[in-house]
Amino acid sequence: MLDKKDYIIKQLHRTHNKKYENYVITRIWHLLNDIDIKIITQQYIVRPSGYALADLYFPQFDLVVEVNESYHLKRKELDNIREKDIVNAVNFKVKVIDTSKDINSIHKQIDDLVDFVNTLKKKGFKKWDYENEFNNKQYIDKGYIDVKDNAVFCRSVDAYNCFGNNYKALMRGGAIHKYIHNVNIWFPKLYQNGEWINDITFDENTIYESNVDFIKNAKAVKDWLATDRYIRYVFAQSKDNLGRTLYRFLGEYTLNREKTIKEQKAVWERTNTRVKTFKYKGSDNL
Amino acid sequence: MLDKKDYIIKQLHRTHNKKYENYVITRIWHLLNDIDIKIITQQYIVRPSGYALADLYFPQFDLVVEVNESYHLKRKELDNIREKDIVNAVNFKVKVIDTSKDINSIHKQIDDLVDFVNTLKKKGFKKWDYENEFNNKQYIDKGYIDVKDNAVFCRSVDAYNCFGNNYKALMRGGAIHKYIHNVNIWFPKLYQNGEWINDITFDENTIYESNVDFIKNAKAVKDWLATDRYIRYVFAQSKDNLGRTLYRFLGEYTLNREKTIKEQKAVWERTNTRVKTFKYKGSDNL
Repeated sequence: MLDKKDYIIKQLHRTHNKKYENYVITRIWHLLNDIDIKIITQQYIVRPSGYALADLYFPQFDLVVEVNESYHLKRKELDNIREKDIVNAVNFKVKVIDTSKDINSIHKQIDDLVDFVNTLKKKGFKKWDYENEFNNKQYIDKGYIDVKDNAVFCRSVDAYNCFGNNYKALMRGGAIHKYIHNVNIWFPKLYQNGEWINDITFDENTIYESNVDFIKNAKAVKDWLATDRYIRYVFAQSKDNLGRTLYRFLGEYTLNREKTIKEQKAVWERTNTRVKTFKYKGSDNL
Repeated sequence: MLDKKDYIIKQLHRTHNKKYENYVITRIWHLLNDIDIKIITQQYIVRPSGYALADLYFPQFDLVVEVNESYHLKRKELDNIREKDIVNAVNFKVKVIDTSKDINSIHKQIDDLVDFVNTLKKKGFKKWDYENEFNNKQYIDKGYIDVKDNAVFCRSVDAYNCFGNNYKALMRGGAIHKYIHNVNIWFPKLYQNGEWINDITFDENTIYESNVDFIKNAKAVKDWLATDRYIRYVFAQSKDNLGRTLYRFLGEYTLNREKTIKEQKAVWERTNTRVKTFKYKGSDNL
């Protein structure tokens, strides 16, 4: 597994083709000079204005930094965005570094940003626990999992085990909730994969699910309307910027039957951004 | 012309393919945090052990920094080295940053290096005058030019004008000294160029000059032995790491007649590392 050193160096190295961006991002990181702060470079985000690629993202501070230079590059790279891990950044703080200015001005802008982050740090922040950040224990112990926590897992089984299970592996795209009879835990790819088309709205409040084959789709609609598991806890499968598979918690979604009939595709609407977790109490039956 | 901002950013960007090197070099630069310090990345140098490519070079402090990672790369890139600008680093301080260690250790090593440079700064140093660093006025005013000064010019005419001239341009590989009758000012490429082969020894004390054509070489040897301009001030032509043409002062060289006869090529031996400069006193005859 990638250690913290290589994680950071790889994150910074992702800027290597854009020399101004590399300069700015490395300077921010080195002047912050704190390995308890997590950084992600080139993070896909949702903004009120649409999808974007953030040059630098501080998950602990809901803060993104834009280096002006690369705007046109960013728009281009938004193809196939839904295969990528996306953070909802609608309420994030955004700071812009303008590299068209002279070097003293660039340095001043970065000094100001570093001061700003240091102010946020002083208000209290959870230190970056690199070894345990994808560990499900934190959510099981807490008793719930919330979209606000930025909950991300490396394996679907880690998400599944948040609900009272203790499996070693999980090879399916979803599985039943052990304790709540009308809930499935779902690990969708939110884009077309094979004959299935999943699609999520910009605000992440609605997921559509359908099959490209007319006959199969008709049968699927029937099944969706018939099932008593009409609630889904959604962990969207994606790739992070280092190519690692991730499962990000998006919330609890409930089937809207009327719209499903009308649109002839499953219409899952978000009904909660927080769900209860369960401790393992022994005896799994696979 | 490249401004200071773009010069620095281009220097740092040269490390972009080597992620550990990029991390270390940008960290050194950003933590030093002083735009009066000049840096050159991937500078060709002469060491007691031979030619090498220094990851980071501080010309103001006779200091080079090696990032361990890239040693094998460096050896490979030494082909055609003589087309490149080379700094004699025999007496330089060398600091090594070992990136195989963990991130705290890497940061500690860099902190120590930054402290070391700051100590050298306190002993006094000439601030990096980006706009005037290639200006010949500093040598003309001083009355001499010395190898120790790392004297480098962008155009051969700037070197030539150090000796009492005031030309706008110079299109030749050499020209006569206006005041000293047995001296030529010479701007050689110290590698094979066309039918001419120039070669300089490792210690830069001897330059060999010959022609690949046997007949032409015999005539050239005759001319060398016959000329009364048997002294040359040498400004070696090369390319810096950003691809800019440079003329670097190497000293005064004198023809060794015996060796020239024996080896059937011009043998120029360094007889001085400092030569007198002359102010322009009017009336050039081109």
